[in-house]
Amino acid sequence: MKTYTIDEITQIVGGMLTKVNDVKISKIAPPLLADENTLALALAEEEITNLPKSRAKAALVPLGVNIDWLTTIEVERPRLAMMKLLNVFYTAPEVNRGIHPSAVIHESARIGENVKIGPNVVIGRGTIVGDNTQIVANSYLGSGVKTGKNCFFHPGVNIGDRVILGDNIILHHGVSLGADGFSFVTEKPDNIEQAKKEGSVKEENLEQKIFKIPSIGSLVIGNNVEIGANSAIDRGTIENTVIGDDTKIDDLVMIGHNCKVGKGCLIVSQVGIAGSCVIGDRVVLAGQAGIADHIEIGSDSIIAAKSGVSKSFPEKSIVIGTPAMPRKDFVKQVKTIKDAGELIAKFKQYEPLLKEFEENK
Amino acid sequence: MKTYTIDEITQIVGGMLTKVNDVKISKIAPPLLADENTLALALAEEEITNLPKSRAKAALVPLGVNIDWLTTIEVERPRLAMMKLLNVFYTAPEVNRGIHPSAVIHESARIGENVKIGPNVVIGRGTIVGDNTQIVANSYLGSGVKTGKNCFFHPGVNIGDRVILGDNIILHHGVSLGADGFSFVTEKPDNIEQAKKEGSVKEENLEQKIFKIPSIGSLVIGNNVEIGANSAIDRGTIENTVIGDDTKIDDLVMIGHNCKVGKGCLIVSQVGIAGSCVIGDRVVLAGQAGIADHIEIGSDSIIAAKSGVSKSFPEKSIVIGTPAMPRKDFVKQVKTIKDAGELIAKFKQYEPLLKEFEENK
Amino acid sequence: MKTYTIDEITQIVGGMLTKVNDVKISKIAPPLLADENTLALALAEEEITNLPKSRAKAALVPLGVNIDWLTTIEVERPRLAMMKLLNVFYTAPEVNRGIHPSAVIHESARIGENVKIGPNVVIGRGTIVGDNTQIVANSYLGSGVKTGKNCFFHPGVNIGDRVILGDNIILHHGVSLGADGFSFVTEKPDNIEQAKKEGSVKEENLEQKIFKIPSIGSLVIGNNVEIGANSAIDRGTIENTVIGDDTKIDDLVMIGHNCKVGKGCLIVSQVGIAGSCVIGDRVVLAGQAGIADHIEIGSDSIIAAKSGVSKSFPEKSIVIGTPAMPRKDFVKQVKTIKDAGELIAKFKQYEPLLKEFEENK
Repeated sequence: MKTYTIDEITQIVGGMLTKVNDVKISKIAPPLLADENTLALALAEEEITNLPKSRAKAALVPLGVNIDWLTTIEVERPRLAMMKLLNVFYTAPEVNRGIHPSAVIHESARIGENVKIGPNVVIGRGTIVGDNTQIVANSYLGSGVKTGKNCFFHPGVNIGDRVILGDNIILHHGVSLGADGFSFVTEKPDNIEQAKKEGSVKEENLEQKIFKIPSIGSLVIGNNVEIGANSAIDRGTIENTVIGDDTKIDDLVMIGHNCKVGKGCLIVSQVGIAGSCVIGDRVVLAGQAGIADHIEIGSDSIIAAKSGVSKSFPEKSIVIGTPAMPRKDFVKQVKTIKDAGELIAKFKQYEPLLKEFEENK
Repeated sequence: MKTYTIDEITQIVGGMLTKVNDVKISKIAPPLLADENTLALALAEEEITNLPKSRAKAALVPLGVNIDWLTTIEVERPRLAMMKLLNVFYTAPEVNRGIHPSAVIHESARIGENVKIGPNVVIGRGTIVGDNTQIVANSYLGSGVKTGKNCFFHPGVNIGDRVILGDNIILHHGVSLGADGFSFVTEKPDNIEQAKKEGSVKEENLEQKIFKIPSIGSLVIGNNVEIGANSAIDRGTIENTVIGDDTKIDDLVMIGHNCKVGKGCLIVSQVGIAGSCVIGDRVVLAGQAGIADHIEIGSDSIIAAKSGVSKSFPEKSIVIGTPAMPRKDFVKQVKTIKDAGELIAKFKQYEPLLKEFEENK
Repeated sequence: MKTYTIDEITQIVGGMLTKVNDVKISKIAPPLLADENTLALALAEEEITNLPKSRAKAALVPLGVNIDWLTTIEVERPRLAMMKLLNVFYTAPEVNRGIHPSAVIHESARIGENVKIGPNVVIGRGTIVGDNTQIVANSYLGSGVKTGKNCFFHPGVNIGDRVILGDNIILHHGVSLGADGFSFVTEKPDNIEQAKKEGSVKEENLEQKIFKIPSIGSLVIGNNVEIGANSAIDRGTIENTVIGDDTKIDDLVMIGHNCKVGKGCLIVSQVGIAGSCVIGDRVVLAGQAGIADHIEIGSDSIIAAKSGVSKSFPEKSIVIGTPAMPRKDFVKQVKTIKDAGELIAKFKQYEPLLKEFEENK
């Protein structure tokens, strides 16, 4: 286990060191789980309170937390400092050097420099794998796929034909990229078309054949994108589905065909974005939110958790609820419902009086 | 790249050709992405508006859109025409001819004519794979599974023992078929049973052993069913879970044990159907809707996106909300909440008057 | 097919036998699907009603259901009896004996007694597989993983480095354990930090670099835990994510980094638990419920289906709605909205009167 001097650690995190003793650091942990060679992370109030009970001799604390009996590194932005530290103590999963003999790689595929490909990886015709990319195991890249440099694909990833990925992409377990869009058509208007047009389901239920609309578009993913376990992003019908640079996607997210997602978005677990949506840059979609098809969400908007978005919103919107509305309207609505309860009680009090007046009028 | 005359294309889509020039078509695209050999798809208003800016010499347009400076094919139902065209320009993923040497196939399995089985596919005892079926890679079919003809299984599919699939089934990346139902029992009533019966959680929390109820039923899927990436359909407890012919299921959908889903249903992404539900024919379940266990939904019903259905509904219902209610009740409820806000303001205005009357009475 | 005498069956389920004839039992089914050697399961009213139409000569019925023309076993707790019976008739998926030649097992891995490892399973450096554990196929266990005894991993499972699993764990198709947490940081406050602090998104949109916060913690899962198809449980940032003994998790569930989930919980399909939550023991999270980050849910609580929980609740809470509230408040709120509709009508009736009074005052 590598150890670091407290000065080295300070250099890494960039904070202000108040050195009480010359501790060696070999790991990081919350105060109560720390031993003598641990840098205690006391970033929040509760953890700071736990410091006197800790065996740690050094702690990372927010700026302004002065503790004279402990070596401390004070930092202005604790999460940023924590990120820097974690990068020091992180060990990447081990990947087979070179190409594992069980990998099945089409002879026409072009594999870059220093690429690592683990067991049971299948790579199709004409696919290009960029330099330094690592594909751990049990994954599939179809034909005409292109991955950038320095990508890391965890096991069980499935990538359909012609999907294009940028550099520094991280794909977690079981990610599906480029499955067909969910798109069908019938000879005559189906139930949902009728209901949209006429407000009710048609009287005669034609048992129509349902035709699949094939997806000939693909999926293009920018640089520095991370996609969580078992998430699925479908290919476009004719144009490509697009995910912008630096967008981060959590587990079990679904992004439908033809969507254009901007740069630097945060898409939290179990979010669903239906087909043909346009999501701006730096949009936050909190957990389990859903966006109906053909919706546009402006840049820098925040969609609250579990919201059901059925219309478009301009940039910098903060929306919540199902159907989703601006936060201030939602707050007002919650208040209305609360007030209505009181009002009903009051009204009942005055109702006999009003009745009497009306009768005597 | 194969090219088609405009007459051939017209024959394929079945529309009305107004030929201005004798263009050769080698691809299709929206107007702004088209070049001289592209058939521009101008199916909606915005795309029609873009035609003058397009380099295309021919366009597919809705019936009644007359453009005299361009070769056009007018069609009555543009999505249907698009489907026909896309089938022409679609290329299916390439699958290994015959059986890949890395596939592990039980000696008792029966593999049909012209079947393609790719790398790392595992097929269990007594399993039958129908003629012309293609299994791309890294998939598992347990023992006693039966697939029909002309199926296409994308990579990473997992199919449990004794699951029966019809003809022309498409399974996308990571589909799970026939995992065990989520079913448990304790010696004495557990928290949820108590709460259902008595309205609150029991006072004494017995730390009871939780027994798994094994699933000995299976899963039977009809013909022409398509199932999206990473969706899961569980097997039945004693009887089979059943999915009817022509039903289309999107990504990340969950269908619980014992469910009977009818024919021609559309089940959109992230829908969850709890155990033992009966869903009629041609039912549309929009994105992220949830159906509680033992619910029946009549044929030709539409369940709006994000609805939480906690009771059964008859055929041709259109329901929305959580708990889900007929759409007209939902519209009324939204109006009530809106009106209540105005009412509260008015009532406050009259309240001093009412107070005065009451005191002076 | 093994057959059992009715006395043997009675011994297994522990009920009260009323023997009319000496039937041999070779399977179990609902009354209408039963033949002469079937024990008809008539546990609910409807199935009891179907008994006269059944070909079965014996039935399992709830205590007190007396049928004199049929051999019956009366049981106090039918689901418990059914569980016992299903265990008799259940056949586990067949797994390759020993280690399949296509499995890729690191030389430093320690494989216990009587372990079965199927095709295309990859096991990393220093990983320990407990006695009698079975790993069906196409699965990945990273480095330093430890599984207990008698585990059963269905195909397509992905387990990240250093994940620790107890005994008797069942993992279904495509489960992801120990993917990285969804955790990022920017140099300066991002949109969501600004919105939380100031109620709106910042005016100047800094196009900041988004840094990944690596997850150096792991995931520890207790004994007797079952995890459904395509569910994902992420590793902790510094500490471990923890799932307690006897907790049962359904399909497509997402549990975020750092969560501590107690013992004996039931977590139904498509539930999402955001990062750093603390869930007590025997908590029921019904389908599609979502829990925001850093929430605590006390033991023996029940979170209704589709609820969106945005604050902590004490033990034995029963909560529902988005935002989730105690059930009694929810019931009151539903009533308020209903009453408000009637009130608005009444108020409109009296409004002219009030207006007149006010004007004449």
